[in-house]
Amino acid sequence: MTDFFDRHRDLLDRAVHAWRVREFWTPFPETPSTKIYGADARRDGHAAYEALLGGAFMLPGHPETARLGAEQSPWGQDVAISYPAVPPAALIAASQAAGAQWGKASMQARVGALIEALIRLNQMSFLIGEATMHATGQAFPMAFQAGGPHAQDRGFEAIAAAWIEMTATAQTAIWEKPQGKSDPLVIEKRWHLVPRGVALAIGCNTFPTWNSYSGVFASLATGNTVIVKPHPHAILPLALTVKVLREVFAEAGLPQDAVLLAVDAPGAEITKELATDSAVAIIDYTGSSSFADWLRTNATQTLVFTEETGVNSVSITGTDDFAGMCANLAFSLSLYSGQMCTAPQNIYIPRGGIQTAEGHKSFDAVVAGIVAAIDALLADPQSASAICGAIVNPATLERIAAARHAGQVVRESDETGAGRSATPLLVVVDGAGSGLQDDECFGPVSFVIPCEDAQDAIARASGIATRKGAITAALYANDPDLIEQAAMAFAAAGVNLSVNLTGNIYVNQSAAFSDFHVTGANPAGNASLTDTAFVASRFRRVMIRWPKAA
Amino acid sequence: MTDFFDRHRDLLDRAVHAWRVREFWTPFPETPSTKIYGADARRDGHAAYEALLGGAFMLPGHPETARLGAEQSPWGQDVAISYPAVPPAALIAASQAAGAQWGKASMQARVGALIEALIRLNQMSFLIGEATMHATGQAFPMAFQAGGPHAQDRGFEAIAAAWIEMTATAQTAIWEKPQGKSDPLVIEKRWHLVPRGVALAIGCNTFPTWNSYSGVFASLATGNTVIVKPHPHAILPLALTVKVLREVFAEAGLPQDAVLLAVDAPGAEITKELATDSAVAIIDYTGSSSFADWLRTNATQTLVFTEETGVNSVSITGTDDFAGMCANLAFSLSLYSGQMCTAPQNIYIPRGGIQTAEGHKSFDAVVAGIVAAIDALLADPQSASAICGAIVNPATLERIAAARHAGQVVRESDETGAGRSATPLLVVVDGAGSGLQDDECFGPVSFVIPCEDAQDAIARASGIATRKGAITAALYANDPDLIEQAAMAFAAAGVNLSVNLTGNIYVNQSAAFSDFHVTGANPAGNASLTDTAFVASRFRRVMIRWPKAA
Repeated sequence: MTDFFDRHRDLLDRAVHAWRVREFWTPFPETPSTKIYGADARRDGHAAYEALLGGAFMLPGHPETARLGAEQSPWGQDVAISYPAVPPAALIAASQAAGAQWGKASMQARVGALIEALIRLNQMSFLIGEATMHATGQAFPMAFQAGGPHAQDRGFEAIAAAWIEMTATAQTAIWEKPQGKSDPLVIEKRWHLVPRGVALAIGCNTFPTWNSYSGVFASLATGNTVIVKPHPHAILPLALTVKVLREVFAEAGLPQDAVLLAVDAPGAEITKELATDSAVAIIDYTGSSSFADWLRTNATQTLVFTEETGVNSVSITGTDDFAGMCANLAFSLSLYSGQMCTAPQNIYIPRGGIQTAEGHKSFDAVVAGIVAAIDALLADPQSASAICGAIVNPATLERIAAARHAGQVVRESDETGAGRSATPLLVVVDGAGSGLQDDECFGPVSFVIPCEDAQDAIARASGIATRKGAITAALYANDPDLIEQAAMAFAAAGVNLSVNLTGNIYVNQSAAFSDFHVTGANPAGNASLTDTAFVASRFRRVMIRWPKAA
Repeated sequence: MTDFFDRHRDLLDRAVHAWRVREFWTPFPETPSTKIYGADARRDGHAAYEALLGGAFMLPGHPETARLGAEQSPWGQDVAISYPAVPPAALIAASQAAGAQWGKASMQARVGALIEALIRLNQMSFLIGEATMHATGQAFPMAFQAGGPHAQDRGFEAIAAAWIEMTATAQTAIWEKPQGKSDPLVIEKRWHLVPRGVALAIGCNTFPTWNSYSGVFASLATGNTVIVKPHPHAILPLALTVKVLREVFAEAGLPQDAVLLAVDAPGAEITKELATDSAVAIIDYTGSSSFADWLRTNATQTLVFTEETGVNSVSITGTDDFAGMCANLAFSLSLYSGQMCTAPQNIYIPRGGIQTAEGHKSFDAVVAGIVAAIDALLADPQSASAICGAIVNPATLERIAAARHAGQVVRESDETGAGRSATPLLVVVDGAGSGLQDDECFGPVSFVIPCEDAQDAIARASGIATRKGAITAALYANDPDLIEQAAMAFAAAGVNLSVNLTGNIYVNQSAAFSDFHVTGANPAGNASLTDTAFVASRFRRVMIRWPKAA
């Protein structure tokens, strides 16, 4: 049963090394290139996706008493796939039944099967990309990357972290205690790694695979069984994931029901019933802080790992490359119409303007530079659509409408021409305004906030991170002392800080094996992808000891 | 500021190795021998203790607005030491004020100072032993070991685990991402280790240092400041600890208030006010499950690590060494009058008796063997006192009185003649009885429970561990298949299992660097001393990244 493990052992060792040194590494190429993925990969992926539309998604052996599914693409397509569904109690029972065998399988058997599943998922990245595109409203290139290789990286990273932790201490030991002139006491010891039980992974609408893989693979690697509960509007990417995992488990002689799919209908979600079941010992959740609070209050029997609401910031205090800065920010603000947990929202700029390589720029000139860069980036409708994608939730359009009244609109949000779309809205808010800028305003809305000076900008950006949470912060600055001061302020606020980004690297980007996503040190969540705290408490060590036979 | 670190680096490396391989290792000799600790150590320790009695315990520089302290020894001595005291808000403010500097000190500076403090505490083990004896009612040899070297081992183990985790990933990296034919993207990254904030360590009456050191040293090593809140009846051992830590911090140029002493009076405890302060981010607690529940419900802003109530068991299904088994159990049941979280309580024996090397023994014969072994062990009053110690809490005497009516008394509890004392009470409970045997009955009370057969004994012992928690389980068995079956049952119940112990090793004993104390896998607590989960979430990693200059 360890064939897969032997086959992938070298890859696991490289992943472990990468996790430790935090340098660039990925086993899964991010480019949707047929040179890499095979000449027919794109066509085959598309055909496979088309073949699924309107049909019954099959998960052989999966519990099923009904069929559910009402996905609709923000791009306009009626997905109309039905999935097997059963009541929560039946899912829990099936998961627990599989748990006995899954928890006792060797960690090598589990880890080998999980890596094999990721490799198969990687080979399906064109299909997963298309499924992700229509679940989330992402444009295809992003959906391919985020839904495919980047999510697979996060899954692999979680396996590596779990492996490191499971093998951190010896599994057996001979404990020999000197007894002065007498013979030593000699005790043999053996440790069992014991999982917590059933894990529930609650998927989100915008990044169904990327935000779920870390928890799913960490729980499975450490011996827990997992119930995957997709957002009712973003089922297919996770259904494909569950299918591949189950196929590999079956081939490896492991119980298929170690991973189950919990499909529900919009308005009739089963999340709360699952989350509060006494058998559920781990919850991984991505979404609003209000539901995270509900989970912490009501699912008191479990560990709860979250990625939640926050207010990401850009502080602009100076730059050597004004055009590069504006172009970089334009892309960060436009990408997937700000529907990323890493997208900047509040832009803090000194009222008196900033120093640049081209001399002083006034506050208005900085704002105008960013607006012009967005306009240029999105001038061509096809490019605009390829960058902005579509709006996954109609409520976002209402938020844009409300934000128009929050201050002085300096850039209007517009449609791209494809799907339900919206380009960035920029609003200057001087003073308290409507207060909208003091909370997360999910979507393509940014508030530009005049500050007293650079210190005030950093204080306000780090301050809101401390109070409301934040996953990213960007800083543009010339002065090394100011940068160091900002580093301390944002470290204390628990936000990862990107300084002076220009060119092809964006504050929104978080790379597995190098960037810890979410620090756990502010209200934006406690799930740091993937540090040891994210994996270590998913299992426990239990010992048996006995005197060594003479 | 890293002098201490350089001086102790080799010792830290050895501790890290020991933590990984789980073989016998200790830097702190457990024998109260003047050959090891110095010819005058015993006399000096006693003199130092006597000099403290009835006086004002000084903590230079510590906040102080009042003096409190009303310790009384279960051995009859009036300790009458007064300690500096301030209201909770002042403790929190002082701790937070120290936090800025403490959290920014290098991990080398912190870890070096902490190891130095442990080494100084070790040199004071005779004084700490005497302080522990009178705080807890332990006899001196045990108080020396458990209060001194064994506690110091647990502190060092926590430092090692924290060090392993803080150094698990690189602190800086150069992330170089290929860009096809273009130049690679090159990003420099640096990570700050950010503590959670103020940690509260709530001590217990029975093992003030042993049960507190893991949390105190883990929190301090990871950059949190610590408020040490001793049990109002067991202040001195922790006051001495705080004093030494503060002295070493001052010498190292570190803020003394990184560790503070929170003294209160019996009946006017400040624990709840401290625990629910919004600044408190970590709580380490040893004690009843009911107060642990209170903490989980009310101190929702913090991590809570606990060691709680449980029902430890012995399952007797057969033995090759009946006399050795009885002698071993007699010691485990008598040691410190069962006032250990690791002491056995329920003894499960098949109704039809067991097989031994001397042939079949009936249920009654097994019970009689254990009773006779206890009687022999405690026949000499001085030995009895040296093993049983004194009863720390008068409520324990009431529990003994109540337990007399739980079934058939087969061994009466008696006094040893020294201090407030009680030798083991053994009660056979056949059937449901009073139900006292279904919960923890802290103190020298054991319930002997007739079972259908060996399987039933194991099922009942592991079942109560699952339901009520347990820290230890003992098994006596001849059949290797039965032992393996028990290993699985107790692993599933999350209890460390000791098999066929005879001679000088007892189920009560848990050795740092080898035995994880508390598994975290049943209701007896979630603080596993010391696994990675116990240290990993006490700090977070926060990144700053910037494009590498060309």
